[in-house]
Amino acid sequence: MASENAIREIDLNCDAGESFGHWPMGDDAALIPLMTSVNIACGAHAGDPLVMRRTLLLAKEHHVAVGAHPGYPDLHGFGRRVIPFPADEVEAWTLAQLGALDAMARGVGVVLRHVKPHGALYNTAADDETLAAAVVRATRAFNPDLTLVTRAGSRMVTVAREEGLRVAEEAFIDRGYDSAGRLLPRSHPSALVSDPQVAAERAVALLQTGTLAAADGALLRIHPQTLCVHSDTSGAATIALAARAALNTAGIALRPLYQLAH
Amino acid sequence: MASENAIREIDLNCDAGESFGHWPMGDDAALIPLMTSVNIACGAHAGDPLVMRRTLLLAKEHHVAVGAHPGYPDLHGFGRRVIPFPADEVEAWTLAQLGALDAMARGVGVVLRHVKPHGALYNTAADDETLAAAVVRATRAFNPDLTLVTRAGSRMVTVAREEGLRVAEEAFIDRGYDSAGRLLPRSHPSALVSDPQVAAERAVALLQTGTLAAADGALLRIHPQTLCVHSDTSGAATIALAARAALNTAGIALRPLYQLAH
Amino acid sequence: MASENAIREIDLNCDAGESFGHWPMGDDAALIPLMTSVNIACGAHAGDPLVMRRTLLLAKEHHVAVGAHPGYPDLHGFGRRVIPFPADEVEAWTLAQLGALDAMARGVGVVLRHVKPHGALYNTAADDETLAAAVVRATRAFNPDLTLVTRAGSRMVTVAREEGLRVAEEAFIDRGYDSAGRLLPRSHPSALVSDPQVAAERAVALLQTGTLAAADGALLRIHPQTLCVHSDTSGAATIALAARAALNTAGIALRPLYQLAH
Amino acid sequence: MASENAIREIDLNCDAGESFGHWPMGDDAALIPLMTSVNIACGAHAGDPLVMRRTLLLAKEHHVAVGAHPGYPDLHGFGRRVIPFPADEVEAWTLAQLGALDAMARGVGVVLRHVKPHGALYNTAADDETLAAAVVRATRAFNPDLTLVTRAGSRMVTVAREEGLRVAEEAFIDRGYDSAGRLLPRSHPSALVSDPQVAAERAVALLQTGTLAAADGALLRIHPQTLCVHSDTSGAATIALAARAALNTAGIALRPLYQLAH
Repeated sequence: MASENAIREIDLNCDAGESFGHWPMGDDAALIPLMTSVNIACGAHAGDPLVMRRTLLLAKEHHVAVGAHPGYPDLHGFGRRVIPFPADEVEAWTLAQLGALDAMARGVGVVLRHVKPHGALYNTAADDETLAAAVVRATRAFNPDLTLVTRAGSRMVTVAREEGLRVAEEAFIDRGYDSAGRLLPRSHPSALVSDPQVAAERAVALLQTGTLAAADGALLRIHPQTLCVHSDTSGAATIALAARAALNTAGIALRPLYQLAH
Repeated sequence: MASENAIREIDLNCDAGESFGHWPMGDDAALIPLMTSVNIACGAHAGDPLVMRRTLLLAKEHHVAVGAHPGYPDLHGFGRRVIPFPADEVEAWTLAQLGALDAMARGVGVVLRHVKPHGALYNTAADDETLAAAVVRATRAFNPDLTLVTRAGSRMVTVAREEGLRVAEEAFIDRGYDSAGRLLPRSHPSALVSDPQVAAERAVALLQTGTLAAADGALLRIHPQTLCVHSDTSGAATIALAARAALNTAGIALRPLYQLAH
Repeated sequence: MASENAIREIDLNCDAGESFGHWPMGDDAALIPLMTSVNIACGAHAGDPLVMRRTLLLAKEHHVAVGAHPGYPDLHGFGRRVIPFPADEVEAWTLAQLGALDAMARGVGVVLRHVKPHGALYNTAADDETLAAAVVRATRAFNPDLTLVTRAGSRMVTVAREEGLRVAEEAFIDRGYDSAGRLLPRSHPSALVSDPQVAAERAVALLQTGTLAAADGALLRIHPQTLCVHSDTSGAATIALAARAALNTAGIALRPLYQLAH
Repeated sequence: MASENAIREIDLNCDAGESFGHWPMGDDAALIPLMTSVNIACGAHAGDPLVMRRTLLLAKEHHVAVGAHPGYPDLHGFGRRVIPFPADEVEAWTLAQLGALDAMARGVGVVLRHVKPHGALYNTAADDETLAAAVVRATRAFNPDLTLVTRAGSRMVTVAREEGLRVAEEAFIDRGYDSAGRLLPRSHPSALVSDPQVAAERAVALLQTGTLAAADGALLRIHPQTLCVHSDTSGAATIALAARAALNTAGIALRPLYQLAH
């Protein structure tokens, strides 16, 4: 049964625009219409100007809110390797990526609403206060009205709030957690939740109880404003559809981040 | 003797920020203080976020106006090769580059004033109406108050004005011209004007008479709003100093593009 | 009925190893076992060292002959754009790519047998004698025993033979031709032959008669040593299977290039 | 006074070919003639096919032995950042780079003699046995006659010898050491030995005594077969000249690695 603190509205997000040149990636056309927010790659770990534009137009067509998905500049590693950047380089590369995507968004008449770092940068900025502060500075310098999306309970939540930036805490409905609230590495047997029904029920339970079971049974207290569906999980669209249905049944409204009452 | 149409004020520009990672290029510290406007590479043919920021700070310190210098995305070719992009790709890559540099400029509190395409894009956009229109669309979509810098007399002048964009026609004081008003290829014996005094006198004569002699003796009618000193010409700073002195003696004021009465 | 000049044995080739980092491309595992030769990307237009090794191992496992597939160094354009390289740059980039793939081949105990330029380089080297000579020089300097694969009837056939290099003339069973013997651009309605049965019969007829009908009805005289199945044509494996069956029925043997009696 | 174990002949090496496209780096024309061996970048952290060829020709002209200088594929970071590659990726990228440079060497009739990893790869392969083994495997697979150059006393010395590969231990005459025998980071005040005379005497003393003083006074026992002059140290050519003179006065012969009696 839902607690008093039960969450009544939530954002559903996925990554998109991660094709590059002639190499396609992900099924944006199927996934984007099922989301309320979408994080678009900015050309550093994936994406290019034509891909950005195409993805922005898709989001616009389906009235899905749009955010930037900056990553380490490492096409070959798809932004999943930690590049040992000092803070000023993280700040500068984040800023340039926000600018590139925002320019493409202006070109199609879309407004950026949030920033969610990608891959290795998502992790280093969540865990390392210096790098978190670098992403926060870049975001605030670019547009202080943007919401920063980060792992629920991460250090970046604190750093961003101290700097006056709006934060959305994120939970993953198709990924397993360790007891420290971090995603299990993809090599772990419980890393992926691939049964759509299980993922959907997990999402509803989390929002109703404010807790999520880690792989070792530990109970994590999480209060997310957004749920992520991994666009590279096989069957992502099926998981998203199941989650939408379960959330609807549970009376939890889907709303883009920037429209949530924070 | 100066004609009635003699030009009384002019902008002096050079390219800058064309280093990349550990590879330096050009002597920005020496040249930028001698300019009224500076065109900063945006990471596609040269430059990276740290280089952009460093160059923007240098321009800010010396109160030099700043513009974007977008090019074909071709680091290895330094933007000097024609990449056979269709118009929509030229438009998208230009837009993304304007955004990247503008974001870095916001980060240091500087306002972009103009756009000058680089290298091969400078030439293709000057000569090909479809590509000129692509650069114009990108610039206008990004910020209709930006001034577009192009070769004096080029097709882009017409295209940009038709679309309501402010244009600055450019002349080169250290480069030879052919009778069609195009720069001589670097392989031509008269391609470079390397004597600073000759270049300086050439600049003054051009502004006073509205004409410039091509390599074959033909008289070109040119009415520039900005003069370019090539940052990669050896002795560029000496040429710039000589030009400043000669312009001063001739009573021609130096003023950044955005402050010129167009 | 087959003419006296009917071809009794033929090589069947496709491109492979065109993934890059996290971006997959093509179904190498399905296609490679159906070929007698495979052209492996060398890291310039596609491929990377791990992809090369994986692809080489796949070819080795299925006893398929291996060649290099060098292209213009343009990952974003997938080697399909003409980069305006002078001959010495074409030669140098081709040579470096041959070396990179050959080193990976040594690592897994495989011997390179042929070279087939990719995409835009396939076309420019076929049509432009200077660039053809550059590819020939690179190939011969690297290993004069390699066979150069080029469009049947192209200038490169002549250039390579004059320089003493073995050449394999290539025909495409799933692509339409113009009356000059060039592939129709992909935008042309007859550019692709997508019916496997039609493609297979076309292949057999070509080998039996030495002629192929262009899209406008003109009869092209072609005497190929190798047939290409485009790995990026949808249904490539089905086409390859149909071709193998039809060739078998017609009594035409499949044999890798380097084993053909030239 | 020289000990009985005094070294009577030594190789002198520097890095070269680290330009990229239009960005020059280092003064190869001045430095290469002063060396007995030169390590040429292979296109991953620096260099490109034309730069490789130009550098190989320079080495050939001056009868200087040539080796490969593979690095992490990170142009922007110039190979000085640790890219978190697993061993198989280090092996594959090393192998591909050896192949690329060797192909260019074949093109100009030069034989590769050694391999010296660059920058971050030099350090990770020296300290981490798994990565050392990866570089050793790549080198041996490519050509077991190549000599591997690594930091004197590093783990790679042991790993390579166990695998039957010839190793050259290296000392740096223009860099300070810590008491563990590692180079001081460039930020350390004693990191660079910039006085040519000091560097030269240091080299001679090292070869005569088999010991080198670390920055903290500790005595390092080092028995090098090759001395490195950093091509990016300002005044590298002056340091090299001073070292050559001092070695000559001390009766120590300069000889390329592959001609040393190991």
